[in-house]
Amino acid sequence: MSVMKVHGNSFSTSTQRVLAFLYEKDIEFQFVNVDMAAGEHKSENFLLLNPFGQVPAFEEGDLKLFESRAITEYIVQEYNDKGTQLLLPGSNKTMAVLQLWKEVEAHRFNPPSTKLVFELHYKPFFGMATDTAVVEESEAELAKVLDVYEARLAQSKYLACDHFTLADLHHLPNVHYLMGSSAKKLFDSRPHVSAWVADIMARPAWSKVLDKQKQ
Amino acid sequence: MSVMKVHGNSFSTSTQRVLAFLYEKDIEFQFVNVDMAAGEHKSENFLLLNPFGQVPAFEEGDLKLFESRAITEYIVQEYNDKGTQLLLPGSNKTMAVLQLWKEVEAHRFNPPSTKLVFELHYKPFFGMATDTAVVEESEAELAKVLDVYEARLAQSKYLACDHFTLADLHHLPNVHYLMGSSAKKLFDSRPHVSAWVADIMARPAWSKVLDKQKQ
Repeated sequence: MSVMKVHGNSFSTSTQRVLAFLYEKDIEFQFVNVDMAAGEHKSENFLLLNPFGQVPAFEEGDLKLFESRAITEYIVQEYNDKGTQLLLPGSNKTMAVLQLWKEVEAHRFNPPSTKLVFELHYKPFFGMATDTAVVEESEAELAKVLDVYEARLAQSKYLACDHFTLADLHHLPNVHYLMGSSAKKLFDSRPHVSAWVADIMARPAWSKVLDKQKQ
Repeated sequence: MSVMKVHGNSFSTSTQRVLAFLYEKDIEFQFVNVDMAAGEHKSENFLLLNPFGQVPAFEEGDLKLFESRAITEYIVQEYNDKGTQLLLPGSNKTMAVLQLWKEVEAHRFNPPSTKLVFELHYKPFFGMATDTAVVEESEAELAKVLDVYEARLAQSKYLACDHFTLADLHHLPNVHYLMGSSAKKLFDSRPHVSAWVADIMARPAWSKVLDKQKQ
């Protein structure tokens, strides 16, 4: 088994998704810092790892991957027995329910929450002006998604089932930044969503991601 | 085995994705037409199938799913031996490459192409004015994605490998509408992309989707 290499930046949400996952799975890996301020993610060498010029990128021997959710999917299948059980084993039918909530994260939660993280966290951080029209529209879109989550989490402790899975984990980076922004109210006003957020943010693997940022 | 039911509308791209898939897999199913003009997708009964109020929704016995790509993923795993082989069997490493290109479709190709289909196809169809700023921005974004596809398709006949897989199939509905719009130039100007588009649009399963629309 070759050592896994993660090329990324600890301030990137997509990198954080992969790091949180690897800490949950208790898998050793080599972290290769990509200096985004210096434009290293657009360098010729990096484009060989990810032609879209975005972090993270992943290597294990000959296997080269990018897209954070493709990386977690490969490792969760290949190393199912290591660390936290993040799948919903049983049958294709039970796995289908996990897949459904992973798709909901990717296609419903991710688009508005990513826009909000950009407007409410990254833009102020870089001294850029927040676009309030984008914030309003994205908050309205996210509110509808969280209404569905509230109903789901009233029936099920986590999104796919009663244990923490990959579907919950994929939310962590965006949830973290939004809980530190004015969009926090969207989570706080929904009791089951609020309890779920507190639960997933308290996972030791997530603390390790935040510790890595401080290094 | 219960009969599969697909609740959808043959004019919806997400429904078309699932239909093209089922025709490839040569699986019998019952199609339940959802009258979107009458707002049936927002009815109480439909919201029990998909709380986001969007087509398609899927039922097989007790299993209820939504999100087109979660539906195809369940069926491709459960009915791997039926019809066209749309996976990349072998190992988790080969499957990881398929997963990567499925993620690229979902996160890179789908957002700008969906915006363009809305601006260039649905809006004119419903007598609404196209937003040229959105078209310009989305075309620029899609052009960058197609540059990556051009390089990939110079090395590999299809996106994941040398045979047609789920990763290619998921593109079909948006590619179809864009090839009938002013965005066609983005595909035509890239020879490998152009050959790939001609190839996947010529699949008999896709013709069946278009025939269903005419019924």
